[in-house]
Amino acid sequence: MAYDASTLPDVSGLTVGIIGGTGDQGRGLAYRFARAGQRVLVGSRSAERAAAAAAEIAALPGLPAGVVTGADNDEVARRSDVVVIAVPWDGHAATVAALAEPLAGKIVVDCVNPLGFDKQGPYALTVPEGSAVQQAAALLPDSRVCAAFNHVSAPLLADPEVDRIDLDVLICTEDRELVGIVAALAARIPGMRGIYAGRLRNAHQVEAFTANLIAINKRYKAHAGIRVTDL
Amino acid sequence: MAYDASTLPDVSGLTVGIIGGTGDQGRGLAYRFARAGQRVLVGSRSAERAAAAAAEIAALPGLPAGVVTGADNDEVARRSDVVVIAVPWDGHAATVAALAEPLAGKIVVDCVNPLGFDKQGPYALTVPEGSAVQQAAALLPDSRVCAAFNHVSAPLLADPEVDRIDLDVLICTEDRELVGIVAALAARIPGMRGIYAGRLRNAHQVEAFTANLIAINKRYKAHAGIRVTDL
Repeated sequence: MAYDASTLPDVSGLTVGIIGGTGDQGRGLAYRFARAGQRVLVGSRSAERAAAAAAEIAALPGLPAGVVTGADNDEVARRSDVVVIAVPWDGHAATVAALAEPLAGKIVVDCVNPLGFDKQGPYALTVPEGSAVQQAAALLPDSRVCAAFNHVSAPLLADPEVDRIDLDVLICTEDRELVGIVAALAARIPGMRGIYAGRLRNAHQVEAFTANLIAINKRYKAHAGIRVTDL
Repeated sequence: MAYDASTLPDVSGLTVGIIGGTGDQGRGLAYRFARAGQRVLVGSRSAERAAAAAAEIAALPGLPAGVVTGADNDEVARRSDVVVIAVPWDGHAATVAALAEPLAGKIVVDCVNPLGFDKQGPYALTVPEGSAVQQAAALLPDSRVCAAFNHVSAPLLADPEVDRIDLDVLICTEDRELVGIVAALAARIPGMRGIYAGRLRNAHQVEAFTANLIAINKRYKAHAGIRVTDL
């Protein structure tokens, strides 16, 4: 069947938690989900830093009152229905492992890209498990895990003047029902579609492709994303 | 600078050779380049099979007379300005290595995707050199090598009813001048743009992403490609 946003489930009642919600990607996603009317919990190791980031996000234009609050990562994991992992790659394994218990039964969306940088620019790191999301899946056997939102541009997400972000969110997972839920979340952000893009074993190249997008951005002075054609 | 097709060089006088021109991808590219008015040489290990494939392609609708001919791979490499490698991954190293001498000084465009298939579908193979194009670059030290046309759908290329193929051709190379030439070739096919997408070390994920496109095609009954947004 073709992509059809009208068939997606209603996810407007789900609380979205962002682990690493004080970083650029996490803040940007928190802002966009909140702007779409989703209840958002911003997580950090420190409840104070989380509250400060939540207050900054809540002050951005276009948000309903009270939709963004902050808490430490553990509490965010417990109180959210969908938990986005948006931490730096360096802290990925430790952060995810520490949250295995509160994340049990939850939907976990990993948007971390394991990249290195040297004077020639970005490159994909080798991950023993294959990819960041496969590492998360191994550490969270009782959660429902997918990769998604790997390619969204943090500057576009954070810019209140940007009303529409035209790109496709590629969703890699073994859990077919999860695709609909995450696609519905993506579709809450104007311009985005969530597209099933394969099993977890094919997530590495989706994460690594962020290095190509960075090269494209540098060459063409853009905030590039990708759109899948013919759907 | 933004992508601007008007700044691309005139490549209409270049002869394009297709090594592996009897396979689906090679045939399709040969047809599209010929239909754009490019002179095309279809290569195969056997000159007879190459001539037969060239005759079949030449009989497709929309081609100027005499633009597609066939020859063995060695002769195609010698007589072409731009040589597209479109062989199966299994034969990639041996075929490329055997052509090192005739390909010296030539532009080589590798569109091979190292994929495996099992009952769960396609997956990216591990390549000792990192990617097919890095293997080609290692075997062809005197050629100008890039990856491109990895994501084009063979059924779309081959369908004479399809006038326009809307996708971006991602070009990975260390050779900046090459980007313009290959982008100009891509732009000869209506709907296509050629976009610089990073160095050779970031080509693996572009090749591997073909596994995701196959998963997308299966799920959505599509001939998916990708378009880079914001350029």
